[in-house]
Amino acid sequence: MLSAILLTVFALAAQAEPATVASVESPGHVLRVSLQLDGGRPSYTVERFGETVVAPSQLGFQLRNGRLDRDFVLLDQSASNHDETWEQPWGERRYVRNRYNALTVRLAERGGLKRRLDVEFRVYDDGLGFRYRFPEQASMREAVIDDELTEFAIAPESTAWWIPAGEPIHYEYLYRRTPLDEVPLAHTPLTLRSRDGLHVAIHEAALVDYAGMWLRRTEGQRLRAQLSPSAEGWKVRRALPFDTPWRTLQIADRAGGLVESDLILNLNEPNVLGDVGWVHPAKYVGVWWSMHLDQQSWATGPRHAATTANTKRYIDFAAAHGFRGVLVEGWNPGWDGDWVGNGYAFDFTRPTPDFDIEALSAYAAKKGVHLIGHHETGCAIEHYEDQLDAALDLYARLGVDTFKTGYVCDDGQVDRRNPAGGPLWREWHDGQFMARHHLKVVQEAARRHLSVNAHEPIKDTGLRRTYPNWLSREGARGMEYNAWGQPPNPPAHEVDLVFTRLLSGPMDYTPGILSLKGRGGQPIPSTLARQLALYVTIYSPIQMAADLPEHYERHREAFRFIEDVAVDWDDTRVLNGEVGDYVTIARKDRHSRDWFVGSITDEHGRVLPIDLSFLEPGVRYRAEIYRDGDTADYRSNPFAFVRETREVGSADRLELKLAPGGGEAIRFVPLGPARYHGKVTAPRPRWGDEQIFPEQQCACGGDDAFC
Amino acid sequence: MLSAILLTVFALAAQAEPATVASVESPGHVLRVSLQLDGGRPSYTVERFGETVVAPSQLGFQLRNGRLDRDFVLLDQSASNHDETWEQPWGERRYVRNRYNALTVRLAERGGLKRRLDVEFRVYDDGLGFRYRFPEQASMREAVIDDELTEFAIAPESTAWWIPAGEPIHYEYLYRRTPLDEVPLAHTPLTLRSRDGLHVAIHEAALVDYAGMWLRRTEGQRLRAQLSPSAEGWKVRRALPFDTPWRTLQIADRAGGLVESDLILNLNEPNVLGDVGWVHPAKYVGVWWSMHLDQQSWATGPRHAATTANTKRYIDFAAAHGFRGVLVEGWNPGWDGDWVGNGYAFDFTRPTPDFDIEALSAYAAKKGVHLIGHHETGCAIEHYEDQLDAALDLYARLGVDTFKTGYVCDDGQVDRRNPAGGPLWREWHDGQFMARHHLKVVQEAARRHLSVNAHEPIKDTGLRRTYPNWLSREGARGMEYNAWGQPPNPPAHEVDLVFTRLLSGPMDYTPGILSLKGRGGQPIPSTLARQLALYVTIYSPIQMAADLPEHYERHREAFRFIEDVAVDWDDTRVLNGEVGDYVTIARKDRHSRDWFVGSITDEHGRVLPIDLSFLEPGVRYRAEIYRDGDTADYRSNPFAFVRETREVGSADRLELKLAPGGGEAIRFVPLGPARYHGKVTAPRPRWGDEQIFPEQQCACGGDDAFC
Repeated sequence: MLSAILLTVFALAAQAEPATVASVESPGHVLRVSLQLDGGRPSYTVERFGETVVAPSQLGFQLRNGRLDRDFVLLDQSASNHDETWEQPWGERRYVRNRYNALTVRLAERGGLKRRLDVEFRVYDDGLGFRYRFPEQASMREAVIDDELTEFAIAPESTAWWIPAGEPIHYEYLYRRTPLDEVPLAHTPLTLRSRDGLHVAIHEAALVDYAGMWLRRTEGQRLRAQLSPSAEGWKVRRALPFDTPWRTLQIADRAGGLVESDLILNLNEPNVLGDVGWVHPAKYVGVWWSMHLDQQSWATGPRHAATTANTKRYIDFAAAHGFRGVLVEGWNPGWDGDWVGNGYAFDFTRPTPDFDIEALSAYAAKKGVHLIGHHETGCAIEHYEDQLDAALDLYARLGVDTFKTGYVCDDGQVDRRNPAGGPLWREWHDGQFMARHHLKVVQEAARRHLSVNAHEPIKDTGLRRTYPNWLSREGARGMEYNAWGQPPNPPAHEVDLVFTRLLSGPMDYTPGILSLKGRGGQPIPSTLARQLALYVTIYSPIQMAADLPEHYERHREAFRFIEDVAVDWDDTRVLNGEVGDYVTIARKDRHSRDWFVGSITDEHGRVLPIDLSFLEPGVRYRAEIYRDGDTADYRSNPFAFVRETREVGSADRLELKLAPGGGEAIRFVPLGPARYHGKVTAPRPRWGDEQIFPEQQCACGGDDAFC
Repeated sequence: MLSAILLTVFALAAQAEPATVASVESPGHVLRVSLQLDGGRPSYTVERFGETVVAPSQLGFQLRNGRLDRDFVLLDQSASNHDETWEQPWGERRYVRNRYNALTVRLAERGGLKRRLDVEFRVYDDGLGFRYRFPEQASMREAVIDDELTEFAIAPESTAWWIPAGEPIHYEYLYRRTPLDEVPLAHTPLTLRSRDGLHVAIHEAALVDYAGMWLRRTEGQRLRAQLSPSAEGWKVRRALPFDTPWRTLQIADRAGGLVESDLILNLNEPNVLGDVGWVHPAKYVGVWWSMHLDQQSWATGPRHAATTANTKRYIDFAAAHGFRGVLVEGWNPGWDGDWVGNGYAFDFTRPTPDFDIEALSAYAAKKGVHLIGHHETGCAIEHYEDQLDAALDLYARLGVDTFKTGYVCDDGQVDRRNPAGGPLWREWHDGQFMARHHLKVVQEAARRHLSVNAHEPIKDTGLRRTYPNWLSREGARGMEYNAWGQPPNPPAHEVDLVFTRLLSGPMDYTPGILSLKGRGGQPIPSTLARQLALYVTIYSPIQMAADLPEHYERHREAFRFIEDVAVDWDDTRVLNGEVGDYVTIARKDRHSRDWFVGSITDEHGRVLPIDLSFLEPGVRYRAEIYRDGDTADYRSNPFAFVRETREVGSADRLELKLAPGGGEAIRFVPLGPARYHGKVTAPRPRWGDEQIFPEQQCACGGDDAFC
């Protein structure tokens, strides 16, 4: 089907004008990417419907042995088109279409070392990726990259949502909203909205054995890649041949179009782990929040959270309410001193004396529950790596098949041994060193059929496609800031996350704080219903019910949604949304016919009508609605809350009314003739079935297998 | 159901703080309007979900005999709630819900004349209206209003889309987009979008025997009503008791929420005409465009358009292609001199000698076609009124049951006789004088079962509810500017219209210029598909197929949509849209089960996925898609166009791809078991059925009554 690609080979004109030497259009003729050689200097442009989105932007490298960005000639180019659909083992949707046109250009220096560099473009209707290939060549065995010179010169005047790069608290910032031409140095995903409503997100895909890309503004709306530093001076050192990560632009008219894009996943390599039935998307509970509230401690002693007795209580709670996992942080020695950025006391191979890990994992197994492991490194990376085999073997033996890692440093940098024996090197959390480390942990975990949830991680670039045991991660300002943050996360933050951080992949935000109080009673900027909506709006295949069991007992009516909500999806649709303002997402459970909707707003109340077209036509559903009460307000009346049920169909429209700082969560359960052909899990008894929701008993028809 | 209203009576505090003396919430607790008396000065505020949308804003009048805006005490207040659904004889939707809570406060001056003034608020979830009532009272028999002092102090920082008031070309401007605090003097509807995505439109409803409201910015984001002037010095003169028009604010989170709001209609009085089966929503053709192209003329002579022979040709064309109306401008004497602003030569009671109106109306009737009348006044208002009875009698006798009026002046003002016999008075086109004139024409027309389509009109304020024979009007920069305007209407203009002018009511924009060329070949800023989409995006119950018959013959494939598209709707949904950027609207035909979708964009291409949830669940439809070709661009390739059919259902999603300046139009025809219970019109033969669209023949199932 090469004929479908408009591929133009231009004569190499020896003139001053930048000459387009190759170009490729997206399959639906929406985007066109062109490569120019301007006196031998390569640059690219992106047009959308004939209008410039990315003005001529440089390509190339600053290598240790000289710039690799000029004096190029085009050796050849090749084009191809692709259209395949692949299945995710878990994710936002089951089937992902990967439809793009590709263009690879091979460049060579005209003189000097005659070094070679390839650039590969993949152009989709909703965005593009490009990467460099350093091909095998006689004059270069190894690339020592001092920096990448890739530019992104954004043409339409845009507003940016961004967090600063090169600062101590990696990724954990509130998003700034500024004109793009006021951004200094930012992490990706960097999200833009033009004056005329075009949305663009710049990010990268498949960050493997390379340094993470920051974006520094050089002038106007021109951004340049700045690779995360390395202690050794260069940013990246690699033997040839190799490919860089993909530099990506997602481009959509609707803000929701960014969220629905599968570009990042599509640009990653397929699953290399084979059957990953041992990876378990699931909900979990744990002692985490009690420590952030400062009611219990990671350290041993009278307030130690990770005790046998306390953990048993959580296992019982998990079993009673259908949670698969119980996360126990502080289970191992090393927490009693000052461990932040100094994790050399951590022992990952044995528990503290008051935590009987053998008995607890057996007790959990009997109840169908799994302990979730925890490895806080305190940024002593190689100290952790030294114990990694033994640590993971222990988890594998005990059925602890998912574990959380932690990289809490005091300055955004981790320790690395100095091979010369001098003072420790410090490495950025997203440099080449840490890119290698994180992948090593994931690969070692995969060998033992364990899954990883990294906190204070390197950013997500879609590697979950290749390694589906990389389940989730943090990498943004999470719920813990609502325990002790000054300020806590304002409502707009959780909307911003959807259109920025979450474009990169799932986030373990740990929602569900129904008590709406942080440490010392600090109010959480949220209504009650909003805490439920977060389970749908913030995608993660593992979701924590983060509050204390005793708090859930006080909010049984709302807690039902947390019990019921799915974590693995057949399909996902963004029903509406504006960056920083509000968002509504519908997702279909992968293991039932249920649909779930979550909607959240910023500090302003909203009225948002939604069509229910995602429901199966001709089927009636019971909508279990968890909404803000009429007088709810996150500042003054956060607990005003209504649970109500309605019968609806796909032709109906619902009007969501979100209070300031509020949200709404809905479960849609099909009624009437079951047409379901998948796995049905037996209903489990739940709190309050009889007393609280008598209408649920009679809303189900006689032929409904779900009642 | 008074209990559902939160109505608070506050003690009248004799303190400096503005005291809220009454307030009322919308039925769904979204909006709250409060009335304050600050040392006797009345003001109102509007809150939405507890946040201020309208900060304290003054109420009152500057009367000829002194201000009526201070020293008030609250006599009493009354509250009520309402929830009714009424049926439109024609419109954007058949059934309109009118659900609001009302509050009436009665104020009286403490001293002096002790004059009285009532204010009535109606508060909906999607907006509010309020009006003043001058009740019968001893100390005031007549109100001579020098100006209204009503303010709108918009609280959230907003961008405004507006056209200037008080300037010569009434309403016919491109919309400006500026910060609200840079608006000088604007017409309504004035549309606002806040930084946080709140949309507000300020307008008025039921402008009867009163002056039109302009909005002058006094400081910051504070606007004040400025009534359209009168030659007599005051703005309005009325005997008591009377009500002013409603001052309205439509408030929505989505831009489309403004368009879906029925607030303006709901605030008008119900139909006073009874059965209006004699009002005919319909499509029409006419000689209009040939004159704007300067190929023919209004004036008699060799280029006269309104000749018997030429009109016959249009009647034949209308009959062949299913158009009900043929508009013939220039049919009557008076066009041969300089008539602009000087229409005293117009005779509305007889045709020019070359136009045999008797024979033509008989010929048309035989073919099921109706001539559409035309009365250009040249702003000689009373000259026209003098002939009105005879003119309308003529039309009624000949079956000319719809007529267009025109008010082309050279300075935005019309003539009015000076009762003292001096020089003619000049009146603004939207002052009290013209409000009376337009309604008089509509009422006289109704007595004869004729319908009115006013050009260069007074603005629409929803009076079509009360007088359903007021079918449509112009009142904005229409298609004629694409014939000769410098510049022609840029693509964003037609998007702007949807979110500004069209909030007030239907517009006779006269779309469908498939030749895409104006006078002298001036390119029209549009793709071909866009011209079709306008029939859905720009609402009017009468829609012209404005291009020349010979041009339609050259674009038969696209013309099919114009033949098929409906003009009267059961339902309307705004599927997406941003002010000034793009909009997609779905409407259901009132006389079949067909749905139609229209989507247009500004100068930027767009990719817009739409859910088809508006279709009947479980029914398959043939989607007849008229879209921009892959390489279409309004500047370089406007004719690139594709017509294709697909079979779809309500669970499907379509991705619209709009070229820069482009659009897409879709007709959805139900297939399979007909469940239709309404009127079925016999299919008529159409161009090219056999040759061009063979797939249409077989796409219909055997049991489909529509094939």
